Amino acid sequence: MDIEFLGTGAGMPSKQRNTSSLVLDLTDENRENWLFDCGEATQHQMLYSAIKPRKITKIFITHLHGDHIFGLPGFLSSRAFLGGEASVDLYGPAGLKEWLQHTYQITGTHLPYELNIHEVADGLIFESDQFKVYAMEVQHVVKSYGYRIEQKDLPGTLLIDRAIEQGVPKGPLLQRLKEGQDIELDNGKTVFSRDVTSERKNGFIITVIGDTSYCQSSIDLAQNADILIHEATFTKEYAKGAREYGHSTIVDAAQIAKEAHVKNLIVNHISARFMPGEMAAFFAEGEAVFPQLSIAEDFMRFQWKNGQLTCLTKK
Amino acid sequence: MDIEFLGTGAGMPSKQRNTSSLVLDLTDENRENWLFDCGEATQHQMLYSAIKPRKITKIFITHLHGDHIFGLPGFLSSRAFLGGEASVDLYGPAGLKEWLQHTYQITGTHLPYELNIHEVADGLIFESDQFKVYAMEVQHVVKSYGYRIEQKDLPGTLLIDRAIEQGVPKGPLLQRLKEGQDIELDNGKTVFSRDVTSERKNGFIITVIGDTSYCQSSIDLAQNADILIHEATFTKEYAKGAREYGHSTIVDAAQIAKEAHVKNLIVNHISARFMPGEMAAFFAEGEAVFPQLSIAEDFMRFQWKNGQLTCLTKK
Repeated sequence: MDIEFLGTGAGMPSKQRNTSSLVLDLTDENRENWLFDCGEATQHQMLYSAIKPRKITKIFITHLHGDHIFGLPGFLSSRAFLGGEASVDLYGPAGLKEWLQHTYQITGTHLPYELNIHEVADGLIFESDQFKVYAMEVQHVVKSYGYRIEQKDLPGTLLIDRAIEQGVPKGPLLQRLKEGQDIELDNGKTVFSRDVTSERKNGFIITVIGDTSYCQSSIDLAQNADILIHEATFTKEYAKGAREYGHSTIVDAAQIAKEAHVKNLIVNHISARFMPGEMAAFFAEGEAVFPQLSIAEDFMRFQWKNGQLTCLTKK
Repeated sequence: MDIEFLGTGAGMPSKQRNTSSLVLDLTDENRENWLFDCGEATQHQMLYSAIKPRKITKIFITHLHGDHIFGLPGFLSSRAFLGGEASVDLYGPAGLKEWLQHTYQITGTHLPYELNIHEVADGLIFESDQFKVYAMEVQHVVKSYGYRIEQKDLPGTLLIDRAIEQGVPKGPLLQRLKEGQDIELDNGKTVFSRDVTSERKNGFIITVIGDTSYCQSSIDLAQNADILIHEATFTKEYAKGAREYGHSTIVDAAQIAKEAHVKNLIVNHISARFMPGEMAAFFAEGEAVFPQLSIAEDFMRFQWKNGQLTCLTKK
């Protein structure tokens, strides 16, 4: 699983950072890409990244502020022209469906693929063989959700030599053992899956939270996550304003990561008031509270592999 | 008067061309900038141009396709944060007002300046001391307007030596003569403005037409214009498809310019199927019909001065 940040700014685009968007690249897991938020010009950012619009099959919107959704109508339209035929499931707060329908009605747009819009509430919002996704409301000036993506445990690998030792013939019985089923051989002997497979591996947990001030819901959503992506609009100097406008400081984000016992924290949604030269001080404030910290930049790509998070690109 | 092109592509953004937007820079005439169409990421393009969002006081939308309006909600919001306090007058087809109101309602946006939305019909849509703007429907798959901007004739300059010869004292009487009024001196003598001012100068005429196929309305709108800005989505090879989708070829655009007796033609809205290397052939097709032709690129700026059009920047 990779994470690519397409927009890491707050409120308005700047030359350094576009408005909010990031992609969970699940090519290795299920050949899909999942988009989180879609600020204006998200499709433009994709032109300069490895992300292919046609591969986006799910979109999760945290809240209905313009810097998180104004790229959505254009992205969905362009996806059709860029080979997007698979259906898209779009998750977000109430109001999203009516607005998109209105937007496509006045522009005379007919998407040639299926768009399923799910207006979310707290709880499990999606489950497949491989994943569970939970939504939970966090604390902002409008209804804003965080999303927790749990990969289900991965099956152990089949220890083929042990299976053969126990007399299992080559063929479909091996597959059933691999899938966790116990089998009975022709001679009446039972072979237990657990005896001929390695242990199941834990799936990853990643929590993506949009605009929020420090709140208990964020801690709950992020509990024991491998990766928490959390906003950090300001430094602690601006803590009062941050709370007033429903935002977090880098220290708030680090505190959430610490209390939720996450392994890694990546912050985004950085105010344009902070110049690139100020990022070291910004980072230091957070690192003092939670050392496993990264500050996302546009086009930064992270890889999650074998329980380790690595930044693949530094711009 | 300058013209700056911010987006010269069709349908979707590409690395070469953004979706539609151009600015009429009237700083010398009335200290205003007028925006024509506002495709997604128009505000992003402005970050890399000399255009200041706060100076935009009028916006003219040709039609309600996404590649001409999806940048509007974000641009208008960001303008407030970039010092925009003056009111904005927005002109466009019916439906625009309801969509913008819906968009700002779901995003909880409150613009701190006055936004006056005028849904247009054929005819005079704006008049000031200096300008008249006319709208007229052209021929597209949805209702699409072209705009004709006529600068009123400019007053002649005061020939001060002649006025003094005729006995006019220094002071407010000179101003009245300059403004075209005849005056009576204390000795009962009438001084005629026409005798002490140079001839009035013709104002410019510029016609901006959005998406359209070849049609009589375009010829009427562009009649004797100094500058016609017209779409040219395709080369003549694609003439059939162009007509079907309500678009023009470069030859159609050149033909309109010729029949309307315009002085200069600038084409935009170029399909992304044409690579930069194909522009010479594209240009040749149009030039064969109308030689005073330019093909706009993003960030190209033209200056209209003393009856001459000059391209100030070639990328």
